[in-house]
Amino acid sequence: MATAARIKKKATKIAPSKAKNLTPGTVAYTGKKTTTVTTLDIIDYSKENFSRFQTNVVEDAFKYEDADNITWINVNGLSNVQDIVTLGNHFELHPLIQEDIVTTNQRPKIDEYEEYLFIVFKMLHYDENEKLINEHVSMVVGKDYVVTFQEAEGDVFDDLRERLGHGKGRVRGAKSDYLMFAILDAVVDNYFSVMEFMSNKVEVLEDKLFDDKENEDFTQEIQYLKKEILKIRRAVLPLREVINRLEKIETPLIEERTSKYINDLYDHIIQVNESVEIYRDMIWGLMDMYMTTISNKMNEVMKVLTIMASIFIPLTFMAGIYGMNFDYIPELHLKYGYFYLWGAMILVFFGLLWYFKRKKWL
Amino acid sequence: MATAARIKKKATKIAPSKAKNLTPGTVAYTGKKTTTVTTLDIIDYSKENFSRFQTNVVEDAFKYEDADNITWINVNGLSNVQDIVTLGNHFELHPLIQEDIVTTNQRPKIDEYEEYLFIVFKMLHYDENEKLINEHVSMVVGKDYVVTFQEAEGDVFDDLRERLGHGKGRVRGAKSDYLMFAILDAVVDNYFSVMEFMSNKVEVLEDKLFDDKENEDFTQEIQYLKKEILKIRRAVLPLREVINRLEKIETPLIEERTSKYINDLYDHIIQVNESVEIYRDMIWGLMDMYMTTISNKMNEVMKVLTIMASIFIPLTFMAGIYGMNFDYIPELHLKYGYFYLWGAMILVFFGLLWYFKRKKWL
Amino acid sequence: MATAARIKKKATKIAPSKAKNLTPGTVAYTGKKTTTVTTLDIIDYSKENFSRFQTNVVEDAFKYEDADNITWINVNGLSNVQDIVTLGNHFELHPLIQEDIVTTNQRPKIDEYEEYLFIVFKMLHYDENEKLINEHVSMVVGKDYVVTFQEAEGDVFDDLRERLGHGKGRVRGAKSDYLMFAILDAVVDNYFSVMEFMSNKVEVLEDKLFDDKENEDFTQEIQYLKKEILKIRRAVLPLREVINRLEKIETPLIEERTSKYINDLYDHIIQVNESVEIYRDMIWGLMDMYMTTISNKMNEVMKVLTIMASIFIPLTFMAGIYGMNFDYIPELHLKYGYFYLWGAMILVFFGLLWYFKRKKWL
Amino acid sequence: MATAARIKKKATKIAPSKAKNLTPGTVAYTGKKTTTVTTLDIIDYSKENFSRFQTNVVEDAFKYEDADNITWINVNGLSNVQDIVTLGNHFELHPLIQEDIVTTNQRPKIDEYEEYLFIVFKMLHYDENEKLINEHVSMVVGKDYVVTFQEAEGDVFDDLRERLGHGKGRVRGAKSDYLMFAILDAVVDNYFSVMEFMSNKVEVLEDKLFDDKENEDFTQEIQYLKKEILKIRRAVLPLREVINRLEKIETPLIEERTSKYINDLYDHIIQVNESVEIYRDMIWGLMDMYMTTISNKMNEVMKVLTIMASIFIPLTFMAGIYGMNFDYIPELHLKYGYFYLWGAMILVFFGLLWYFKRKKWL
Amino acid sequence: MATAARIKKKATKIAPSKAKNLTPGTVAYTGKKTTTVTTLDIIDYSKENFSRFQTNVVEDAFKYEDADNITWINVNGLSNVQDIVTLGNHFELHPLIQEDIVTTNQRPKIDEYEEYLFIVFKMLHYDENEKLINEHVSMVVGKDYVVTFQEAEGDVFDDLRERLGHGKGRVRGAKSDYLMFAILDAVVDNYFSVMEFMSNKVEVLEDKLFDDKENEDFTQEIQYLKKEILKIRRAVLPLREVINRLEKIETPLIEERTSKYINDLYDHIIQVNESVEIYRDMIWGLMDMYMTTISNKMNEVMKVLTIMASIFIPLTFMAGIYGMNFDYIPELHLKYGYFYLWGAMILVFFGLLWYFKRKKWL
Repeated sequence: MATAARIKKKATKIAPSKAKNLTPGTVAYTGKKTTTVTTLDIIDYSKENFSRFQTNVVEDAFKYEDADNITWINVNGLSNVQDIVTLGNHFELHPLIQEDIVTTNQRPKIDEYEEYLFIVFKMLHYDENEKLINEHVSMVVGKDYVVTFQEAEGDVFDDLRERLGHGKGRVRGAKSDYLMFAILDAVVDNYFSVMEFMSNKVEVLEDKLFDDKENEDFTQEIQYLKKEILKIRRAVLPLREVINRLEKIETPLIEERTSKYINDLYDHIIQVNESVEIYRDMIWGLMDMYMTTISNKMNEVMKVLTIMASIFIPLTFMAGIYGMNFDYIPELHLKYGYFYLWGAMILVFFGLLWYFKRKKWL
Repeated sequence: MATAARIKKKATKIAPSKAKNLTPGTVAYTGKKTTTVTTLDIIDYSKENFSRFQTNVVEDAFKYEDADNITWINVNGLSNVQDIVTLGNHFELHPLIQEDIVTTNQRPKIDEYEEYLFIVFKMLHYDENEKLINEHVSMVVGKDYVVTFQEAEGDVFDDLRERLGHGKGRVRGAKSDYLMFAILDAVVDNYFSVMEFMSNKVEVLEDKLFDDKENEDFTQEIQYLKKEILKIRRAVLPLREVINRLEKIETPLIEERTSKYINDLYDHIIQVNESVEIYRDMIWGLMDMYMTTISNKMNEVMKVLTIMASIFIPLTFMAGIYGMNFDYIPELHLKYGYFYLWGAMILVFFGLLWYFKRKKWL
Repeated sequence: MATAARIKKKATKIAPSKAKNLTPGTVAYTGKKTTTVTTLDIIDYSKENFSRFQTNVVEDAFKYEDADNITWINVNGLSNVQDIVTLGNHFELHPLIQEDIVTTNQRPKIDEYEEYLFIVFKMLHYDENEKLINEHVSMVVGKDYVVTFQEAEGDVFDDLRERLGHGKGRVRGAKSDYLMFAILDAVVDNYFSVMEFMSNKVEVLEDKLFDDKENEDFTQEIQYLKKEILKIRRAVLPLREVINRLEKIETPLIEERTSKYINDLYDHIIQVNESVEIYRDMIWGLMDMYMTTISNKMNEVMKVLTIMASIFIPLTFMAGIYGMNFDYIPELHLKYGYFYLWGAMILVFFGLLWYFKRKKWL
Repeated sequence: MATAARIKKKATKIAPSKAKNLTPGTVAYTGKKTTTVTTLDIIDYSKENFSRFQTNVVEDAFKYEDADNITWINVNGLSNVQDIVTLGNHFELHPLIQEDIVTTNQRPKIDEYEEYLFIVFKMLHYDENEKLINEHVSMVVGKDYVVTFQEAEGDVFDDLRERLGHGKGRVRGAKSDYLMFAILDAVVDNYFSVMEFMSNKVEVLEDKLFDDKENEDFTQEIQYLKKEILKIRRAVLPLREVINRLEKIETPLIEERTSKYINDLYDHIIQVNESVEIYRDMIWGLMDMYMTTISNKMNEVMKVLTIMASIFIPLTFMAGIYGMNFDYIPELHLKYGYFYLWGAMILVFFGLLWYFKRKKWL
Repeated sequence: MATAARIKKKATKIAPSKAKNLTPGTVAYTGKKTTTVTTLDIIDYSKENFSRFQTNVVEDAFKYEDADNITWINVNGLSNVQDIVTLGNHFELHPLIQEDIVTTNQRPKIDEYEEYLFIVFKMLHYDENEKLINEHVSMVVGKDYVVTFQEAEGDVFDDLRERLGHGKGRVRGAKSDYLMFAILDAVVDNYFSVMEFMSNKVEVLEDKLFDDKENEDFTQEIQYLKKEILKIRRAVLPLREVINRLEKIETPLIEERTSKYINDLYDHIIQVNESVEIYRDMIWGLMDMYMTTISNKMNEVMKVLTIMASIFIPLTFMAGIYGMNFDYIPELHLKYGYFYLWGAMILVFFGLLWYFKRKKWL
């Protein structure tokens, strides 16, 4: 047993991530955004009616369950695990789903259950410091309700909410599957914005690389972009599989007429993916470009300086000659010897300059 | 709600692309070419008859609908969204299709509907400044009509129109599916021309790299070509999938005898794709080649200059020796000491030169 | 036969690995950890009962076979081959399985037999010297028993054992298939920890590369990381296939309700795999980054030094001029000639310095 | 219409390839080898009979059509399009096939028609200047005839013709499908020869890179090889797919007993493909090798020269010291001061030399 | 016909490989090991009996054909083609098989015939000069016999023969399919040994790269390893497909109980393949590592030397100053001027040294 203890010590040295080594199905929050309260934003609507309600009491959400209206319960804050469990148990969510809702590093996926679909995806946005934020979102889609779980308040669904409120668009007349589509569509549309922001950063950096006058070191900046695009890729790539599977799923939850929309969504996520791959290639290529630029600039410096040395070395030699103390150096006694030498030196100077110019070394 | 507002501010900072965050199916033009009028070029033909008509009034197109003739309606200009919607509704196009027609960054794709096929592709050409222009084209293929939507006037279909007018070729006697094939064939043939132009640019640049006397910096030029080939690839690669699916589609719209032609078209698009991949590899290889060339040239310069220094440094040392002021330096008092030294110096000079030559350093 | 003998000599020169060239199915230990005794850790439980027993006598394990309880026999130490054979024969394991249990370089795999499943996997951990240890583990899953074989004592199952002991979690009420899942889950969870440790090492090294002041040579360190990630990859990648196959296997041994858990496990192993691929790319990228950093630093040094030389070379030339012994050098006889020259030299010095600064070479 | 005209001007600027923008199915020669006459080489044989006939009149070929004998019509020269059309119409070839026969940049492919198979492939050989020639060959395989179309006279089928003439081998007793196999076999065998020639060129270049004394620039040579292997690859890779499809085709034209031979052919084309891939990798690797070799050589030069400078710089400094004009420099008045200094200089010289040697810098 | 002759001349210039351009199915030896005699090593066994017999007369092998015993005929030497043909005809082998037996560059493959299986594989070993030898082996597996064909005597089957002789292992009681498995198993086990030898070479070279004091050029050595691993890969990779197909073949020749063993064999060949891929990556990485090492070392040299120059250049300038012949240089007339200057020089010397040290340039 001594050995086992030793291993255990090692195991802690490895610094296990939070929530690891727990019973599978244990609901333990793994993210960073710990808020004290869980807020629920409940939208209940049908073609005719619309009501919106915000609360901190989870049980308030239970009364919206009547089959005629579609209910969208948006849960902000995952750190109060007990609230999640209460909700989860009310909607009869499998323990593994409850675990996935609060496991913020869970990759995007779709799970089919008889009564509902469970979809995990990531919401990306840049914060005030232009740092890419990756928010874990889960969605449960039932017959007449959709529950979404976010880490914090603030999301990309405000346009959707407004459309719901004003009764514009198809969404008010449609079922929960169209709401699911509308939510995913908002997320994917937001990916386009993120990619545009990213593309902007890449182009700005590219211009800086070419125009650089300050000899800055861009290695870290490029490395940072590399990590950022990888982060985006980890969010976007698996969602493509999710939507692809959503297209093929046979479930009464998704109506025939929604499938055209999901098809369209799949087109969009493929397009985002292509952008990601292209910018990934470009960012990787930036390193090569940067190295070429550096070595071009360095070469320019070295060349000019070396040429300078090459011109003065023969001149110094000439001066050295007439600094010698031989008893008999005839040139020294010429009347204008000194000026002749200056003439020779100027000739050599411009001769070499002309030679280097002709060789295109200058 | 304060948080939500903050997020919203961020979202605008990300600068969303036009038409994003709209209700799916909203028809909003996303391109740059905004013209004031939409022009329609209508060709109506059967084996015996042929008529061509140009108009700015969308409703003029509706009268050409009789089952015997094939009608080709070519729409130039997508910025007058209302005209597109009018046409779309007349032909009973799904809202998502109407959206795709004006979403100029939609990638090439094919959608099957019961009454028609919807195909999106890109028309490539170089403008006067040799800038690659990527024009978004959509095509709706019905039983006895084809509608094409372009961003601006001017296209690659003039040969096809002429053939239609003169009654040459198979097209006059065939159905709308053959017209669809002929349009796609013209587009793919044009890709061959674009690739030839591109291949020309690559070869010219390659020659410049090898012959370069001016020490130009080609990094940006190579980078530009990289982006251009990526742009072509984004247009061509998905069209291959489109045509592949066109081959396999089971629809009454496509006749048995046309399938041989589509087969042939698929061969051509594969060939274009291969060219694209080959030139992509070549352009990527250009960077390596450029760096080798630069470093070869730099090495040549540095070597010659370093050798120059290496020859004069010992000579300067020799002159230095006899510039010393020791009371007793016997050589200084030799009668021809000065000339002996010159002899020694010339010997050293040519000795080193010969040594470097023999070592192949010069 | 002389030739055959010669070949044989060669064959030994090739240094065959242990246990190779034996009859297939021969049970011969190939690992390094040779312990004198085999210890067995037997856990026998049902929903109500729990007992744990440790022994060095293999035959002690045989009495735990009654159909109501689930028995988990954990065997530590594979070098006493006879013990393995005794156990193997008791459980009627195929000779090839017995061979795989002691062949420590066997890659992860799953074999289906009628009476049991046989799974091979790797347990990874870092030892005290931060060296990655790769322990070969085999598992036989029967109707009411699970036998695991490890090379040495100490493992990642202590949490699981505790849960079994305290009757917490689902495991006590479930069948042997859930125990199998729980064991694999512990292993995969541990991969996450290993990857976190690895990611830490990569980030530390990355920081060191950027901040390096000591001009250390990181080539070997990077090479070492490369090998380590390859080692992890060899353990993790095939397990993914194993779990994928476990999902699809049709066997009475795995109950319907366990399949959701295996599904979840598959999600996790994919996630580990993605991490492995990302860190592999990063480590490969480190070499490039290191080279860029080195050459940036080298360039900085060379530039400063070359500039220094470039400034003093013209100055030395100027001093050389007035060291010449011409009879008539008018400047030498100016009263303040020496000081004038100093003035000129200081001018040249600061002039060049200013020029280099303006050119951003300093 | 003004715009359309402008676009058209652009289109010509893109310089469309010959035969592009024509009606699909138009038969227009696109190659370079324009000969004035089309020659036909007709071999007519059965197990018992053999006759060979050469003519310039296409219609002569039509009389050889009797079901008992196999007729092989080999057409040399594709520029007289009318002859091709006459032949094509006689054999009832689809217009697209007639187009492919004369479109010399058509990639290898196989088309199945009810009455015949149509196969396009490339014949490779090196001309007198060791330039790789890529000849477009088409083959129509009917029930009792094979027609092959080549760009010019001279091919790799002479061995086959001889075997046919002498009645050796299986070919005389077999059907047209075996003749088809024999022709493809000759082509693939020739690919082996081409690859051997290519492998020879690569090895010669590799040796030159290592032994290079002349500081030649091999960049262009490597670039040329790159293009050559790409050319071979474009010919060989699609033929593999062709033969693979030939294996799987269900047609009465191919007898059961021939399929073993086609199987064997497929093995060979895979082997050629593997060679192509290996040499492609090697040629790409040559560039790296070349750069390493160059930079090794450059380093050697720079090192020796820099060391030379480093030795003479301190010596020159020493000489400079005693060239100073201080009133009181005691060493100058030592009797043997000059010789002492020489001694010191020689010491420094050899000391530095020894130091550099010990550091392995020389 | 003149053209045809010219082409033919070219064709010989391409230097066709032996046995190419022959009738398909022609049996012509293509290897290098030409021995005068073919030796046969015949082992005939059943569970009870065992006899071994060696002969040079092919016909001797024919008498061992009785259905009860398993006969293993091992043929050494492929250059006496007549012997191969005699044997081949006796066992009714297809002409293509007979061709493949003697075509030593045939890649590994499996062919199914009704009466037998035909398997081609490669036996790898290192000769005395550590050169990798690639021996072509073919195997025909019939109902009660196995015939193996090798290029030369000496193989990896001695352990197997011994097991057969001593009646150890399963092989004596099993059918010809188990013998086939045992032979392939010996070959694959030998691949492990070869990979171990190779891995050793890679590690030795890696160590040499890091510790290199002699400035050796390792480019050729790395290039050699690259070719060696490619050679191994060409032998091993296709065998994987062969064994995979062996697993899936439905033939009465392979018994149910043998399939577990073939399964195991497939595991092993995958493992070898993984090793090959890993070492391939490593060897490719060696080049990068080597270049980094070289450039690190070069940088070290250049830096020290440049620093040396940078220290002496200002000192030489100082000496130059006081070598000038101005009438009035006050310092020259100071009593201890010379010593003051020495002091200043020593200050500058150590000052610069300290500065470079602080900047970590030394």
